[in-house]
Amino acid sequence: MLGNFTYNTPTKLIFGKRVIKDLPKVLAGFGKNVLLTYGGGSIKKTGLYDKVKSLLKDFNIVELSGIEPNPKYDPSVITGAKLCKEHNIDVILAVGGGSVLDCSKAISVCAKYEGEGWDLISGKVKAKESIPIVDIITLAATGSEYDMGCVISNTAINDKRGYLDELMFPVVSFLDPEYTYSVNKWQTACGTADAMNHVLEQFFATPNSQFNDGVMISALKSLMANVKVALDRPNDYAARSELMYVCTLACNGIMSNGAGYSGWQMHSIEHALSAYFDITHGAGLAIITPRWMKEILSEKTVERFTTLGTLLFGFDKTLSDMEMAGNVIDAFYNFFESIGIPMHLGQLGVKEEKIEEMADHILANDATDEPYMFAPLDKSALIRILKESM
Amino acid sequence: MLGNFTYNTPTKLIFGKRVIKDLPKVLAGFGKNVLLTYGGGSIKKTGLYDKVKSLLKDFNIVELSGIEPNPKYDPSVITGAKLCKEHNIDVILAVGGGSVLDCSKAISVCAKYEGEGWDLISGKVKAKESIPIVDIITLAATGSEYDMGCVISNTAINDKRGYLDELMFPVVSFLDPEYTYSVNKWQTACGTADAMNHVLEQFFATPNSQFNDGVMISALKSLMANVKVALDRPNDYAARSELMYVCTLACNGIMSNGAGYSGWQMHSIEHALSAYFDITHGAGLAIITPRWMKEILSEKTVERFTTLGTLLFGFDKTLSDMEMAGNVIDAFYNFFESIGIPMHLGQLGVKEEKIEEMADHILANDATDEPYMFAPLDKSALIRILKESM
Repeated sequence: MLGNFTYNTPTKLIFGKRVIKDLPKVLAGFGKNVLLTYGGGSIKKTGLYDKVKSLLKDFNIVELSGIEPNPKYDPSVITGAKLCKEHNIDVILAVGGGSVLDCSKAISVCAKYEGEGWDLISGKVKAKESIPIVDIITLAATGSEYDMGCVISNTAINDKRGYLDELMFPVVSFLDPEYTYSVNKWQTACGTADAMNHVLEQFFATPNSQFNDGVMISALKSLMANVKVALDRPNDYAARSELMYVCTLACNGIMSNGAGYSGWQMHSIEHALSAYFDITHGAGLAIITPRWMKEILSEKTVERFTTLGTLLFGFDKTLSDMEMAGNVIDAFYNFFESIGIPMHLGQLGVKEEKIEEMADHILANDATDEPYMFAPLDKSALIRILKESM
Repeated sequence: MLGNFTYNTPTKLIFGKRVIKDLPKVLAGFGKNVLLTYGGGSIKKTGLYDKVKSLLKDFNIVELSGIEPNPKYDPSVITGAKLCKEHNIDVILAVGGGSVLDCSKAISVCAKYEGEGWDLISGKVKAKESIPIVDIITLAATGSEYDMGCVISNTAINDKRGYLDELMFPVVSFLDPEYTYSVNKWQTACGTADAMNHVLEQFFATPNSQFNDGVMISALKSLMANVKVALDRPNDYAARSELMYVCTLACNGIMSNGAGYSGWQMHSIEHALSAYFDITHGAGLAIITPRWMKEILSEKTVERFTTLGTLLFGFDKTLSDMEMAGNVIDAFYNFFESIGIPMHLGQLGVKEEKIEEMADHILANDATDEPYMFAPLDKSALIRILKESM
């Protein structure tokens, strides 16, 4: 059964080998002044930076480099917005992974706003316009290249916010799987875990539909099979291309059109972890996943687990529902461990004494206990999940 | 493995119960002068016509009614384009199934072209602009509401052409599954067969990918299960909503991003059948499907059949590949028969003596023998398929 929904993704995907040759033609449609945003310099090592600069020799390029993982409002977004205003930027070109693109999205609206940009990101004020964004994605993970969201950290107030606005859909996303060959094992595993979690956050919802269930199962199967190949053979085009494409679709919403809203609680929990301890997003999600599943498992929710059990893992249908659900939870735990993710938050530096404070923070920011959610979580439930994850 | 592709669908889907309440707001964005297009009057019987007129009481409405199944260039497209020019139409509102919408798409470009409209449709001239299209879909079938194509017949020259242009994406498609409650068993079955064929035309291609395979299998499973429910219980919202949504996605291309091009040969064959004998599109496709499959089955193509056998039908993996392929072909034949489609072209009035002429016509228009296709079909192959289908 599909409930009511509205769906629209105006972004154009240009996918495949050597597609960035079309970059000058695409950017020329917006103007000459380009803000080029990137991260810690890996694009310089791989040669992509030089390639982009050479393609854009006829443009005026202003650069914002050093964008961090878990991108920060201060300094990155503030600096980027200032550069846009000073240089009359026509288009932002984000080159990198989800953090670079998320930061660029926030810049795109803050640059067109005269007040304090955090008012937009925190949802106090609705943005009215934005600078167009084009991206070249170098990491299969967040799906930011095909959605209207960004996640920005404000370290001054220990806050990490998901922010959505249709103005932030990229106009064009260039996706060349070969640029992900150089992504190391850790980032490959964490990126895949992130995308798997995006699918699971949508899967645990009601109403749901036979078609969407099949799409999401297919996404999970593809991610789980292809990450293993990519970890073994980083330059396997078939595996890298599937990972890149599925990650792109996984956060866009198209897999859950007409479905209920689960609450995206694992993301709410992980955002607090990253805000307090700056851990890698995908790793945090992987660790939380089986503990969150265990917490929400009940007679009311068990059908989602048995559907995963039969269609994704091919478990024996004669098992009792609760046995199968337990096996599903174990299977996810074992899978994440098998791709090299340490399955305890303590291993990533998270401190147990902050758990209660983080639980309060989560409830204050994201209200994981809303009754319309698939399985509302109160403070004690959040604390149990976090403690189990240590 | 995904090959290179570009994907962009700007259409906004507004899906669910009573969504057309937003119609005035959507149309107001384009102007006051609306060309309302519809078919044989079923929307008057169901009350949808009155509902639309009452919602649009503040607009200037010009009507084009009587659009036929297999919509005709002359008179429908020509008349519609003339009305648009005479009344300075700002937006076309198509209310009906794929035929009404396809006709409206052709009108939208022909109305902005000073020469003979068939030059655009036949691909001689590239369209430069179009009138925006909004639609309210009343039949789950063609997916025209989410693609940039239309199929138009030119009876004067026995021609039926598929015509693609990005200018013809609808701006907004309203999809209320309740409007399909009144669709009779024959149209429900034929609409589903049409959408199933759209999936199969994309599935038989190389390269293909694990993810897309899973999406397409899920689409087929959902269509095959839900059409049975809808035939039994026409007012079953869950079934009608899945059928409507899957049909919408099935012809858009999103299920085969990065895949090779099969050639859409079953459509080429069916277009000739409809051009010569004006048969129902979905029925023609259903009849051709198992015969086309039998013709293209070979050691080179058998993997596509065994993938369908195991993932869609759950056949025993110990069967030989060729045995399983045979079972898949039989399963499709039996399925279409089970939903009430007569499985012989003769039953629809097709005459055997026209087969050779139709084979020539197909090759002349669509070149089903191009070497880049999944399984090129020469004239003798086309004749075998058509004869077997009698």
